[in-house]
Amino acid sequence: MLPIAVDAMGGDHAPSEIVAGARTAADDGIPVVLVGRPGELGDTGDLEVIEASEVIAMDAEPGSSVRRMKDSSLVRAAEAVRDGRASAMVSAGNTGATMASALLRMGRIKGVARPAIATLIPTPGSTPTVMLDSGANAECQPEWLVQFGQMGAVFAHHRLGIAEPRVALLSIGEEPGKGSPFVKEAYAALEAATLRDAEFIGNVEGRDLMTDAADVIVTDGFTGNVALKTAEGALKALLTALVTAMAGRPEALEAADVLAPELDDLYREFHPDTYGGAMLLGVKGVCIISHGSTNAVAMRNAIGVASEMVRADVVGHITTAVAS
Amino acid sequence: MLPIAVDAMGGDHAPSEIVAGARTAADDGIPVVLVGRPGELGDTGDLEVIEASEVIAMDAEPGSSVRRMKDSSLVRAAEAVRDGRASAMVSAGNTGATMASALLRMGRIKGVARPAIATLIPTPGSTPTVMLDSGANAECQPEWLVQFGQMGAVFAHHRLGIAEPRVALLSIGEEPGKGSPFVKEAYAALEAATLRDAEFIGNVEGRDLMTDAADVIVTDGFTGNVALKTAEGALKALLTALVTAMAGRPEALEAADVLAPELDDLYREFHPDTYGGAMLLGVKGVCIISHGSTNAVAMRNAIGVASEMVRADVVGHITTAVAS
Repeated sequence: MLPIAVDAMGGDHAPSEIVAGARTAADDGIPVVLVGRPGELGDTGDLEVIEASEVIAMDAEPGSSVRRMKDSSLVRAAEAVRDGRASAMVSAGNTGATMASALLRMGRIKGVARPAIATLIPTPGSTPTVMLDSGANAECQPEWLVQFGQMGAVFAHHRLGIAEPRVALLSIGEEPGKGSPFVKEAYAALEAATLRDAEFIGNVEGRDLMTDAADVIVTDGFTGNVALKTAEGALKALLTALVTAMAGRPEALEAADVLAPELDDLYREFHPDTYGGAMLLGVKGVCIISHGSTNAVAMRNAIGVASEMVRADVVGHITTAVAS
Repeated sequence: MLPIAVDAMGGDHAPSEIVAGARTAADDGIPVVLVGRPGELGDTGDLEVIEASEVIAMDAEPGSSVRRMKDSSLVRAAEAVRDGRASAMVSAGNTGATMASALLRMGRIKGVARPAIATLIPTPGSTPTVMLDSGANAECQPEWLVQFGQMGAVFAHHRLGIAEPRVALLSIGEEPGKGSPFVKEAYAALEAATLRDAEFIGNVEGRDLMTDAADVIVTDGFTGNVALKTAEGALKALLTALVTAMAGRPEALEAADVLAPELDDLYREFHPDTYGGAMLLGVKGVCIISHGSTNAVAMRNAIGVASEMVRADVVGHITTAVAS
């Protein structure tokens, strides 16, 4: 397998945590190449480095940055995939710029209207739910959601091992007539379409994201991003309130200590880092988008996911499914 | 004060829990009149009953039901407010039909383009966030969000005691340029508008709903409903996972027992019933929409909120604010 190109400069804890995660992945047998400023990467062990002199800031405007900063770590990572030097790219940097680099350098899969970001939402007691689009396209055409469903189903199959994923549409009521005009049109398009190795099961609601109601949930990138961040915010608020409450009374604090193993497991289960990042589906290469807060462990997981997606040839399977 | 008209037939636990909640509210000194089928209400104490022979089912199509079922408890409750027999209506029944009854019987406040549902989102350690629209209008015009902001600010002032509420727009990035074309237009409209006793502070994201980032968050009814239900679902998933984890080991179960008071408080703080329901803003009367799962305690709270909103003359203040 060609190495996974890791953007060593992207993320709140770059480059140290990113390099540390990449080294662990390499120790586990996954080939890795770092992309960034060699002088700033610290001890990279025996990892190869693709030089890139520029860094796109976390809050930079994505489109213009990617066009202007041709020697940035993100653009060079995407080029490494395009040029057959790497099998995949992984970044915890600017999400929009990661997407734009992949789109402009790798290009779209033939027949794909718009790439979409697929995110795994934790579902207690079950496999996670794949939600897309989580933010690549703030405005969508209803028919794009059919492709999102198809791409999400291929991803759910190879990432989560679901034989025939159930694809649902995010709306504000279960009946077909519920939702905005956009959602009603998307419903009609999904119902009329034939999905390959997947089944459209109708509408679901926001409360179904973290349940087993569907395997893949499609929505426009605006709604998907709001839902994703709302869920993250709600979990954070509750966990914070829980910790505060437990620290309020000595007996409660002792009880919380006893519960530490369970609370740690829960925290991990619900933490965005656990699944190692989202995947941009619809471009000609594997592109994993990690959370800005990515630490070494999360980066190791993200590189692992990238390697799995390369081995499973998810890009090839999406190409076939979209063409059919 | 004129009595609060309570739809005794609406909700998953109607009529028994609704009647019980209404009786408690009356015992607390709030005048209440029940609306429904007298023979089915059980012991109503000395509460007055407005007879209504029909019941709009929880899953009935709202518009046609309200037009057709003129003797339904929902329609009669709204008429009681219109006709000066009641000061407010409260229902835990079909949300769409509650909205339609209020809109068709009470009518819109002059100048209000569309009424919107304002919901309180729990914010640990701070006053709740008012979010609107949580589902009245699946599709909106950008300029309606200015009115939502104004109405929400009046509500936040009287409901939560916030002198000059900070109004924010729900988007997928904090910068003004972030979001869908709809959201960008809404941003421009909010920035150009002069809100009365309130201030527009820009965009917030889904993760800010349960923080102190803003007092009032405006969005279209589709996004608002998805966000509300996503937050509810996330909290439920985490609480369920927590309870399951605590029951897995005898020592953990004992520790959980010690923590019962803290966990009960948390559960109450985050439960939708705590705030006694959402308010439909923009109609000529107080209309409180409670959760379908409303029990006696939640109904008591909802009637309390209705009475507060009547005493504060929120409808009068919205009328003035919208006209100015």
